[in-house]
Amino acid sequence: MIPASAPTARVRAVTPDGLQASRTLPEETPIALVYNGGTQAVMMATPADIVDFALGFTLSEGIAPHYDLPDVEVMAHDTPSGPGIEARMWLPPEAERALRSRRRASVGPVGCGLCGIDSLAQALRPLPVLPEAYAGLTTADVKFALGELRDWQPLHDETRAVHAAGFWQPGNGILIAREDVGRHNALDKLIGALARARIDPAMGAIALTSRLSVEMIQKTVMAGCPTLIAVSAPTARAVRIADEANLTIASTSRGEVQVFTHPRRIVTRRRREGPRFVR
Amino acid sequence: MIPASAPTARVRAVTPDGLQASRTLPEETPIALVYNGGTQAVMMATPADIVDFALGFTLSEGIAPHYDLPDVEVMAHDTPSGPGIEARMWLPPEAERALRSRRRASVGPVGCGLCGIDSLAQALRPLPVLPEAYAGLTTADVKFALGELRDWQPLHDETRAVHAAGFWQPGNGILIAREDVGRHNALDKLIGALARARIDPAMGAIALTSRLSVEMIQKTVMAGCPTLIAVSAPTARAVRIADEANLTIASTSRGEVQVFTHPRRIVTRRRREGPRFVR
Repeated sequence: MIPASAPTARVRAVTPDGLQASRTLPEETPIALVYNGGTQAVMMATPADIVDFALGFTLSEGIAPHYDLPDVEVMAHDTPSGPGIEARMWLPPEAERALRSRRRASVGPVGCGLCGIDSLAQALRPLPVLPEAYAGLTTADVKFALGELRDWQPLHDETRAVHAAGFWQPGNGILIAREDVGRHNALDKLIGALARARIDPAMGAIALTSRLSVEMIQKTVMAGCPTLIAVSAPTARAVRIADEANLTIASTSRGEVQVFTHPRRIVTRRRREGPRFVR
Repeated sequence: MIPASAPTARVRAVTPDGLQASRTLPEETPIALVYNGGTQAVMMATPADIVDFALGFTLSEGIAPHYDLPDVEVMAHDTPSGPGIEARMWLPPEAERALRSRRRASVGPVGCGLCGIDSLAQALRPLPVLPEAYAGLTTADVKFALGELRDWQPLHDETRAVHAAGFWQPGNGILIAREDVGRHNALDKLIGALARARIDPAMGAIALTSRLSVEMIQKTVMAGCPTLIAVSAPTARAVRIADEANLTIASTSRGEVQVFTHPRRIVTRRRREGPRFVR
């Protein structure tokens, strides 16, 4: 067993005039998510908050429910191609059976995306429909949340090259944020951190520094959070899937908030505090 | 068979004052890459340039060599969860055997990243070492290339939410560029388009709008291109892997070019045109 690598590394660069410069870059390490002795996936991720990552992946992929999360044992390994990390989890018999049958339905793929799901119909797995939870965000809150998220990015301050996901609660601001070179990993880490802190994702909104693709929608819905906001636009398919799952998604475009689905969860201050101003 | 979906879609949004707005967003569609009747991967990608994408994935994943690329048959499907696309390819017996044995070594994963590769050691597959090709870029070329790439992004102009990968040749500028909601897919599409146009990736540099993660390095090396430049920083692991594979990587940081590996392929103008200026 060797110590896990640091989340950043100092790297030498050369500038145009031939001068040596040095720059801090985010580290990227393969992290194997292993359930009951079988590897479910190997992700390239920033080696920090591994337990959060493992639990968030377990939740957002529907492998175990939040009331029955496994313990996580983190092991650092040295492989011929450099350091790697293994997150070992043990599922109870029922969850293990479900995972095994899902694994049998898959083929062995390579690359990135919704790989390993054998058919197009399987690729977009059916999502639950979120309950009518009301986070009570205003359009000003959306801007505040995305602005405050910027203050929760120590790795990004060092490297200017990682994504962040934060959980925002009206009145409380950002409660927890997590960073990663991969935007999917940052979201999984946040979802795991919320579960460990026993914070119900239904009671606020998730804020992202990235775009809103289908996978970000799927993970947010699986985590049970009703509102997802981001600095950059959703894809058209992400809008349709969020609409069906009763998820509110919004993004800022040139400083203006645009709400794409279920806009009742994001109101203007005037409407929310209507009585105070109107009469 | 139904027609493939368009690469963008008009979507309704609501602005803070409750006004309806409409915005063009990139489409995101599951694309199944199917070899000899077996699905290798399903990626969420922008439904455009599917043949380029299928051939680029085939090359960058080392499934078939550039001199023996398969034909691609593109089929549009309607699934219960919406439209999807299948790219059908047929490999000769030897390539098919190699792929099957790789598939057997994998487990069925879910999610995104280097999934499906059963162990950490397998996750970072050994890469070939690039030959001493010399693209002859100057640091000014790096800035020009990244600037010119901006003119090759019609989808981004419409949606402000997609990545691009372009191939730059000194003296000729950008020859081909491709766009996608996913940065891995944009690079695969470019690699496939270069193969179809019979342009040797060794004769120039690939320019990206995205960060330089390990997977971008792997794909560029597998395509045989010796120089990779991007607007945003590499990860530390990407730098080490590029170094071992003899790949030059550079990015711009606040307008300044930083070269992280094998800087001899990127010179200052003064050095390249030395005799003209020095005496």
